[in-house]
Amino acid sequence: MPLDPSRTVVGFIGTGVMGRSMARNLVGAGYRVLVYTRTPAKAAPVLEAGAEWRDAVADVARESDVVITMVGYPADVEEVYLGERGILASARPGAYVVDMTTSKPSLARRIYEEAAGKGIRALDAPVSGGDVGAREARLSIMVGGDEDAFEAVRPVLEALGKNIVYQGPAGAGQHTKMANQIAIASGMIGVCEALAYARRAGLDPWRVLQSIETGAAASWSLSNYGPRMLRGDFEPGFYVKHFLKDMGIALEAAEEMDLDLPGLELARMLYDEVAEIGFAEKGTQSLFVLWEEDEGDDAAPDLVQLTRR
Amino acid sequence: MPLDPSRTVVGFIGTGVMGRSMARNLVGAGYRVLVYTRTPAKAAPVLEAGAEWRDAVADVARESDVVITMVGYPADVEEVYLGERGILASARPGAYVVDMTTSKPSLARRIYEEAAGKGIRALDAPVSGGDVGAREARLSIMVGGDEDAFEAVRPVLEALGKNIVYQGPAGAGQHTKMANQIAIASGMIGVCEALAYARRAGLDPWRVLQSIETGAAASWSLSNYGPRMLRGDFEPGFYVKHFLKDMGIALEAAEEMDLDLPGLELARMLYDEVAEIGFAEKGTQSLFVLWEEDEGDDAAPDLVQLTRR
Repeated sequence: MPLDPSRTVVGFIGTGVMGRSMARNLVGAGYRVLVYTRTPAKAAPVLEAGAEWRDAVADVARESDVVITMVGYPADVEEVYLGERGILASARPGAYVVDMTTSKPSLARRIYEEAAGKGIRALDAPVSGGDVGAREARLSIMVGGDEDAFEAVRPVLEALGKNIVYQGPAGAGQHTKMANQIAIASGMIGVCEALAYARRAGLDPWRVLQSIETGAAASWSLSNYGPRMLRGDFEPGFYVKHFLKDMGIALEAAEEMDLDLPGLELARMLYDEVAEIGFAEKGTQSLFVLWEEDEGDDAAPDLVQLTRR
Repeated sequence: MPLDPSRTVVGFIGTGVMGRSMARNLVGAGYRVLVYTRTPAKAAPVLEAGAEWRDAVADVARESDVVITMVGYPADVEEVYLGERGILASARPGAYVVDMTTSKPSLARRIYEEAAGKGIRALDAPVSGGDVGAREARLSIMVGGDEDAFEAVRPVLEALGKNIVYQGPAGAGQHTKMANQIAIASGMIGVCEALAYARRAGLDPWRVLQSIETGAAASWSLSNYGPRMLRGDFEPGFYVKHFLKDMGIALEAAEEMDLDLPGLELARMLYDEVAEIGFAEKGTQSLFVLWEEDEGDDAAPDLVQLTRR
């Protein structure tokens, strides 16, 4: 049975770029929201909106009906859920815990099982749609876990996103997000190579964009990142370091399943190089720097050599 | 000055899947249309619509104000334009000739120059949008050549497409089309790998499509070819053999410009394999067969090995 918003306390752990907007949308939807995040200053806008601060993960977990986490890396997820003073050690039996971080499918299954042993219902529910989607409550949410637990917390998720799809048992949400990132990875290479080719051929790349973004080459990446690449605007919407994390998870999972993903391998090699030359904290459109004109000084890496080493 | 449709005779050479619909749309727009194609039976629907048959390229060229060509390969373009009884040997000074085949930028420049020497105005104007776009006169048309020649034939092109963009001097249309194909090539790898991963992970790939096709992974290829891949429908919209031709042209042009395109190289290697195992005459969504489940009999190629040989 779905939870009643007016009687549901939602704990929110991790108020970074994404979590901040999400927690605020929960307050806006009428939930009582308890917040903890590692760097307290980052919680300020959420507290201003009406959320309450708690000094520790355990405090949030103890008082909440639903605990949502939106942290950085799988290691953070593991610590926050399975640590000595983590969520599973503190949440009440009957509580729902929802990890919305992009993390490992295998870790999602481990959390699900440990939670089940304590009567806690765990879901993995990573999102797509970026900071703008988070702000406007238009995230795509991919959910794994028990379907009745999903139905119970659905109203909470509906305060955060639009395209909310139950994908299957524990880990299925994370696997779906991996499929999403896999499609994006090779797509970004195509966008960079198309624009680099256009520029090198002496075309006006803005006009080329106008020709190709409405036809069979159309993609969200081309329309959203193409203009930023051409402007040289590499400010992060989505961090290179986080995309590298995701690609690492996907490649590890693919290897466990004995699945070859040469496109994703190529993307990881190229993004590794992007991070190495100083763009780890920039946006994923920074991939384009690998094709920057180098004024003949041979500073640009030889991409073909790079991918064969 | 734009040509007057009611006084303009348009010659059309090449009435295959694309050309057939395009020639018909010209008849529908009120042009007198003269047709020649290598396999006369393929012209039947265009003749029924009201076009007139001519027995040779030279006959079409001699009588037309504008000659449009939509043939298969650069070798066909070369023959049709530069052959002894080709278009440039027969067209009237002052005529416009428009090659809408996807072909080599360098060949487009050669045709432009030979045409100019005879007072003939040549444009390269390849299209994107497939058989459906051709039928519905919604093609994206990328034009190279002299801008005044483009303005003169613009009404003719407007009978064929919607997004019509002048890209620059001779060859610029073909280069733009190459940029388009480059973006698609890597994008198709991403689509295949995402769906293959979803299936191997035990997810319902149709549900995964539902989750990912609206977010940052959204693309024309994912939404149009994803469902066909999952249904195992490999019937051609766009032929593998033609895509291989395009990738070959783009890689040759990139090499001339000293530009590395590792994503496109990977795509070409994978599509070469697809053609080798019998899918050259199938649609580009056939790329997905490389990730087909092989029921453990080891028939599927090792993709990682494949791309390193």
